[in-house]
Amino acid sequence: MHSPISERMGFVALMILQIILFVLFAVFVRYGKAALPAEVPGLFLQHVSKYPHFQDVHVMIFVGFGFLMTFLKKYGYSATGYTLFMSALIIQWTILVKGFFHMYDGKIELSLEHIIHSDISAAVPLISMGVLLGRTTPIQLLFMALFEIILFAVNEYVTLEILSICDVGGSITVHAFGAYFGLAVSFMLRPKKEENEPGQYEGPTYTSDLFAMIGTLFLWIYWPSFNSVLADGTAQERAILNTYLSLAGATVTAFVLSTMMSHEKKLDMVHVQNSTLAGGVAVGTVCNLMIGGHGAILIGILAGSLSVMGYRYITPAMAAKLRLHDTCGVHNLHGMPGVIAGLSSIVYAYLATKEDYKYDLGAIFPAMANQPKNLTSNHIIGGYERSARAQAGFQLFGLFMTIIIAIVGGLIIGSVLRCTCFRKLQKEEQHQDELYWEVPEQKSE
Amino acid sequence: MHSPISERMGFVALMILQIILFVLFAVFVRYGKAALPAEVPGLFLQHVSKYPHFQDVHVMIFVGFGFLMTFLKKYGYSATGYTLFMSALIIQWTILVKGFFHMYDGKIELSLEHIIHSDISAAVPLISMGVLLGRTTPIQLLFMALFEIILFAVNEYVTLEILSICDVGGSITVHAFGAYFGLAVSFMLRPKKEENEPGQYEGPTYTSDLFAMIGTLFLWIYWPSFNSVLADGTAQERAILNTYLSLAGATVTAFVLSTMMSHEKKLDMVHVQNSTLAGGVAVGTVCNLMIGGHGAILIGILAGSLSVMGYRYITPAMAAKLRLHDTCGVHNLHGMPGVIAGLSSIVYAYLATKEDYKYDLGAIFPAMANQPKNLTSNHIIGGYERSARAQAGFQLFGLFMTIIIAIVGGLIIGSVLRCTCFRKLQKEEQHQDELYWEVPEQKSE
Amino acid sequence: MHSPISERMGFVALMILQIILFVLFAVFVRYGKAALPAEVPGLFLQHVSKYPHFQDVHVMIFVGFGFLMTFLKKYGYSATGYTLFMSALIIQWTILVKGFFHMYDGKIELSLEHIIHSDISAAVPLISMGVLLGRTTPIQLLFMALFEIILFAVNEYVTLEILSICDVGGSITVHAFGAYFGLAVSFMLRPKKEENEPGQYEGPTYTSDLFAMIGTLFLWIYWPSFNSVLADGTAQERAILNTYLSLAGATVTAFVLSTMMSHEKKLDMVHVQNSTLAGGVAVGTVCNLMIGGHGAILIGILAGSLSVMGYRYITPAMAAKLRLHDTCGVHNLHGMPGVIAGLSSIVYAYLATKEDYKYDLGAIFPAMANQPKNLTSNHIIGGYERSARAQAGFQLFGLFMTIIIAIVGGLIIGSVLRCTCFRKLQKEEQHQDELYWEVPEQKSE
Repeated sequence: MHSPISERMGFVALMILQIILFVLFAVFVRYGKAALPAEVPGLFLQHVSKYPHFQDVHVMIFVGFGFLMTFLKKYGYSATGYTLFMSALIIQWTILVKGFFHMYDGKIELSLEHIIHSDISAAVPLISMGVLLGRTTPIQLLFMALFEIILFAVNEYVTLEILSICDVGGSITVHAFGAYFGLAVSFMLRPKKEENEPGQYEGPTYTSDLFAMIGTLFLWIYWPSFNSVLADGTAQERAILNTYLSLAGATVTAFVLSTMMSHEKKLDMVHVQNSTLAGGVAVGTVCNLMIGGHGAILIGILAGSLSVMGYRYITPAMAAKLRLHDTCGVHNLHGMPGVIAGLSSIVYAYLATKEDYKYDLGAIFPAMANQPKNLTSNHIIGGYERSARAQAGFQLFGLFMTIIIAIVGGLIIGSVLRCTCFRKLQKEEQHQDELYWEVPEQKSE
Repeated sequence: MHSPISERMGFVALMILQIILFVLFAVFVRYGKAALPAEVPGLFLQHVSKYPHFQDVHVMIFVGFGFLMTFLKKYGYSATGYTLFMSALIIQWTILVKGFFHMYDGKIELSLEHIIHSDISAAVPLISMGVLLGRTTPIQLLFMALFEIILFAVNEYVTLEILSICDVGGSITVHAFGAYFGLAVSFMLRPKKEENEPGQYEGPTYTSDLFAMIGTLFLWIYWPSFNSVLADGTAQERAILNTYLSLAGATVTAFVLSTMMSHEKKLDMVHVQNSTLAGGVAVGTVCNLMIGGHGAILIGILAGSLSVMGYRYITPAMAAKLRLHDTCGVHNLHGMPGVIAGLSSIVYAYLATKEDYKYDLGAIFPAMANQPKNLTSNHIIGGYERSARAQAGFQLFGLFMTIIIAIVGGLIIGSVLRCTCFRKLQKEEQHQDELYWEVPEQKSE
Repeated sequence: MHSPISERMGFVALMILQIILFVLFAVFVRYGKAALPAEVPGLFLQHVSKYPHFQDVHVMIFVGFGFLMTFLKKYGYSATGYTLFMSALIIQWTILVKGFFHMYDGKIELSLEHIIHSDISAAVPLISMGVLLGRTTPIQLLFMALFEIILFAVNEYVTLEILSICDVGGSITVHAFGAYFGLAVSFMLRPKKEENEPGQYEGPTYTSDLFAMIGTLFLWIYWPSFNSVLADGTAQERAILNTYLSLAGATVTAFVLSTMMSHEKKLDMVHVQNSTLAGGVAVGTVCNLMIGGHGAILIGILAGSLSVMGYRYITPAMAAKLRLHDTCGVHNLHGMPGVIAGLSSIVYAYLATKEDYKYDLGAIFPAMANQPKNLTSNHIIGGYERSARAQAGFQLFGLFMTIIIAIVGGLIIGSVLRCTCFRKLQKEEQHQDELYWEVPEQKSE
C-alpha cells in the first residue's frame, strides 16, 4: 500500500484499541443476571423471545447495509468489508459507551439487550458511511465512527431518557442523526470546485446492481424486526404490522413514481434499491402507536414519494450547488424520512389519550403516565403526568435537537478528518477498491 | 420509455389504486385484539411464537422467489424488482380481499395472522409470473395478480372452509392454483407459429445462475417454515420434520437424475435450482399428517424424479406442440408436485383414524371430528363426523376443482391481457430489462 | 460426461442409497413424543423455542458454506451445488447413524433435536470438502462424506458421552475433526511433484469474491446460533454473548493484520472471508462457560491473528513442502482455531467451581456434578464428582484423541479414494465446473 507512515500507524492504533477494548471489558463488564448461572433452572422466556428479533437486525446490519452499498462498480470489497470491519469494532465500543450510562456497582451487566442496542447503534456510522461511500479512507471512516457513537449515545440518552420522547424504531435518534451527521462530514470534505463532477467509477454495473438488491431485500424483509425489537407486548405487534404496511405503501409509490420521474421515464435501480425502504424509516418513531394500518400506509406513500423526488432533484442539486455529495443518497432514505417520522410523532403524541393506550401509555410515553410501567429513567424533565400537548412539544424539540447535534458534531469531526494527520483520497483514487485491497487482475470474465 | 399513452395510464392507475387501498384500510381495517393495548400486560406468547416463522416465509417471498427468477441473463432487475413491486401491492390487497371473508362488525381485525396469509398469498401470482417470466409487461403482470388473488381467495375459502379439505402447506390452493392459472394465461398469450423458437435472451450466464442459487437456497432452507407456519403443536413439529426430509429426498434424486437425463449427461442448473425444491411442494398438503419420515422421503423421491423428467421432456414438448411456454418450468416445480401433494392427501385422508390422530384429528380434518378443536367454519358441507373415505373424496374433489378454476380463470384473464388496452411485448423485446429499466451501458466488466 | 462406466455407476449407487435410506427410515424411524398427536393440546414450548435457532444453523450450512466456497472463478456451480447435494444426503444419513446410538425399543424417535444434530453434522464433511475444493469428483466427495460421518459419530459419542468433555459449539468434535480429516485425505491425494504448482483456475474474480462474501456474512451473523443451539437457559445466553464478542475481536484483528501481513500490504479477501470467522470456532468449546466478555474477546484476538498468519505462512508452506493442498485454508479457519478452542477448554475446566457454575455445572460438565441435571449418558468414565483438574485432563485427552482419529481416518479414506474404482481429476480438470456441469457458453458478459 503506497501510504504514508501515518496510514500504517492508523492500523496499528486500531489493533491497540482492540486490545484496550479487551482490557476495558475485563475491568468494567460482567455477565448480567440472565447470563449468570442460577441455583435452579430459570424459565428464561423473556430473553429467548427477543433472540430471533436480534438475529433479524443482525442480518440487516451486516448483510443489509453491506450489500446495499455494493452498487458501485469497483467498490464491492470495500462496501461489504468496511461494513464488517467497522461494525465489529463499533459493537464492542458501543457496549462500553452506552453501558457507562447504566452501570450497577461500577459494572456493565452484559445481556442480550446490550447486543441488540449495539447492532442498532452500528447502523448510525453505517448510515454516515453511505453518504461518504468511496470518498474516505478506512482509517477516516473508523475514526469518525468511534466519535460519532459517543455523540449518538449522549444524544440518545438525552432525548429518550431525559426528554422522554418516543422513538422505538430509532428514526430520529439513529436514522436522522446518522444521515445529518454524515452530510455534515461530507460538507467538510467537499471537493474543490474544479473536481466537483462525478467520479469515473461512481456508477453501477448490471452485476453490482444485483448484488445491491441482496442488501435492499434483506433490509426490506427484516425492517419490521428492527422497528419492533425494542417494543413489547401489543405495542410490538403494532410495530410489526405498521412497518410492514408502511414499507408496502412506500414500495408501490416508489416504483410508480420512478417510471414517471426518472431521466428516461423508466424504472431506476437507485429508487428501487433505496426509496422502497423509506417507509421503514418514516414509520419508525410511531410504529408502536395507534396509527392504524391506514396511517402506516399513508406515511409510506409520503416517504416513498419524497424519497424518489429527493433522488431526482435534491441530491443532484446539493452536489451541484453546495458540492455536498451523498453517494448513496442517504438524505433520501434516512434523512428526510427520519424527519417525516419525527413530525408524525408530534401529531400522534398530540392525539394520545389514556383511553386509547391503556396499559401501553406508560410503556410508550413514560412521562405521560401516572406511574410508568417500564421505568426507564429517574431524570425525566418535569416528572410524570405530562400532557399530550407537552409530549408533542417534546417530540418536536427532540427532533430539532438531534438534527442540530448531528450537524454540529459532523462539522467538527469532518474538519478533524481534513487535518494533516489523515491520508486523504485523491479524486482518481475514489470509489474503487484498489488502493486498500488486493484485487484480482481481471475483474471478471 | 417509448410506450403508448395507455402504458403511462397503467402506472397512474396503480398510484390511484395505492391511494384507494389507503382509504379502504381507513374504512374497513382496525387492529385486532393482539395489537390493541390492554388494561394489563398480556402474555402474548401465541403470537410472538409465529413471528420467526413469518419472517422465514417473508424471506422466501422476497429473496427466494425474487432471486430464483434472476437466472435469465438480462432480466435480473425485473426478476427482483417486479417480485418486490407486485408483492408490495398484493400483500395490501390480500389483507382486504381475504379479510372480507372474516369480518367482525364490518371490520377486518388486523393481526400477525393476516400478514402471514398475505405473504403466502403473494406466492400465488409470483408462481404465475414464473410461467410468464420475460413475456409480459409489468402492467400486465400486476393486472393479472390483482384478479388472480380474488379468484384464489374464493377458491381457498371454498376448498378449505366449505369443502373442509386439508392443505396446510398450500400445495393445492397456492402452488397448483398458481401454476395452472399461469399456464392458462401463458396459453392465451402464446406466440404466433413463426415466433415459437426460444428468445435470444432466454438463457442464463454463469453469474446469473449463481444469483438464482441465492433464491433456490433460501427457498430450500425455509420451506419447512412455509409448510408449518399455519400448523400448531405436534402437527407443526411433524410439518417441519416431514418437509425437511422430503426436500432432502427430492434433492438427492434431482441431482442423480440430472446427471443421467440432461442433454450432456451432466448436472443441469435448471434441475438443481428447481427440482430440488419439488419435495417441499409435494409434501405440503400432507406434511402435518402421520406420514412418517419414510413417507416424506418417498414423496420427495417421486417429486424430484417427476420434476427432472418434466424439465427434460414435458416443458419442451408443451412449447413445441402447444406453443405453451413456461419460462421457469413452473409446471415441474409447482404444478405436477402440487398434484402429487393432492393425490397423497387422498391416500392419507383415507387412512386417517381417530386412534392415530387423537386431538389433532379435529385440527387437521375438522369435518371428521366429532367437535372440531379449531373451529374454522360453520359452513362445512355435511357438518361434522365425516368418514375417512368421504374425506378422501373431498380431497380429490378439492384438487380437481382448484385446477379447473385456475385454468378457466387463467384463460379468461389471459384473453383480457391480449386486448388492445394493454401494451404487449414484441418477440425481440422479451426477456430483457431494457424496455422498462434504466440499464448501465456496459453490463459488467 | 466423458466419464468411465464406474462414474455412472457411482450416481446409480447414490440413487440406490437414497432408496435404501427410505427403507431404513420405514423400518427404524418413528415420530418422537413431540411430533405425536396428544390426547390434549400440549404447551410445546421447549421445542418451538429452538426452531429459530435451528433455522439460523440451516442457513449457515446451505447458504453459508455453499457461498463461502464460491470464491473460485469457475467453481461456483460446484460450490453451491455439491454443498446442497452432499448435505441433503448427509442429513438423512446422520439421522440414522447418530440415531443408532440412542434408540428406544429398537426405534429412532424423530424430533427437532435430530435435524439440529443433522445440520451440525453436515458441517463436518463440508469442512473437509473445503480442504479438497476443486480437486475431487462429486462421487469421491460423497463417498468420503458417508464414511466420515460414521467416524465422526463414533468419536463424538466417545468424547461427549463417555469421556464427558464439554464442546457445546462443536469446535473440537466438528471443526477440528472435519479439518484434520480433510487435510489427511488431501495428503493422500497430493499431486505428483511436477504438478505441485497452483492450478490455472485456482483463484477468484471480482464477482466470485463478492459471492463468497454472502457466505462469510451469513456464517458470521448466525455463528452465535450455531454455538448456542445445544445450550439451554443461562448457558445459552452466555454462548450467544461470548460468540458475538469473540467474532468481533477476531474480525478487527484479521482486518488489521491483513493490511500488515499480506503480500501487497493491503486487505486480502481471503483473510476477510475466512479469518474473521475464526473467532466463532475458537470460542465454540467454551462459549457457555464463565469466560467473561473479555475472555471471549481475547480468544477472538488470538484466533484472528493465528488465522491470518496461517493463511500467510503455514498454508503456502504445507503446499510447497508437503504437497498438502488446502484450497479454502480450512486449517486456518477450522483446524487451528479448533485447537485453540480445545486448549481454552482445558484452562476453563481447570478453573471451574461449583460456586461459579451453580446449577449449570451439571449441565455443562455432567461428570463434575454430584447428580447431573441433564442426564446425557450412563457410561461416563469414572462416574460423577470428577475434579476440575481431572476434567481439564479429559478435555486435553478428548482434543488429542479427536485429532488422531480424524487424521488416521482421513488417511484411510484418502487411500481408498486413490484406488482404481474412482475416477480421479487430472490437473487441468481441477477447480472448474465444466466436467460435471452444463455451463453456459459465455461465462458472463
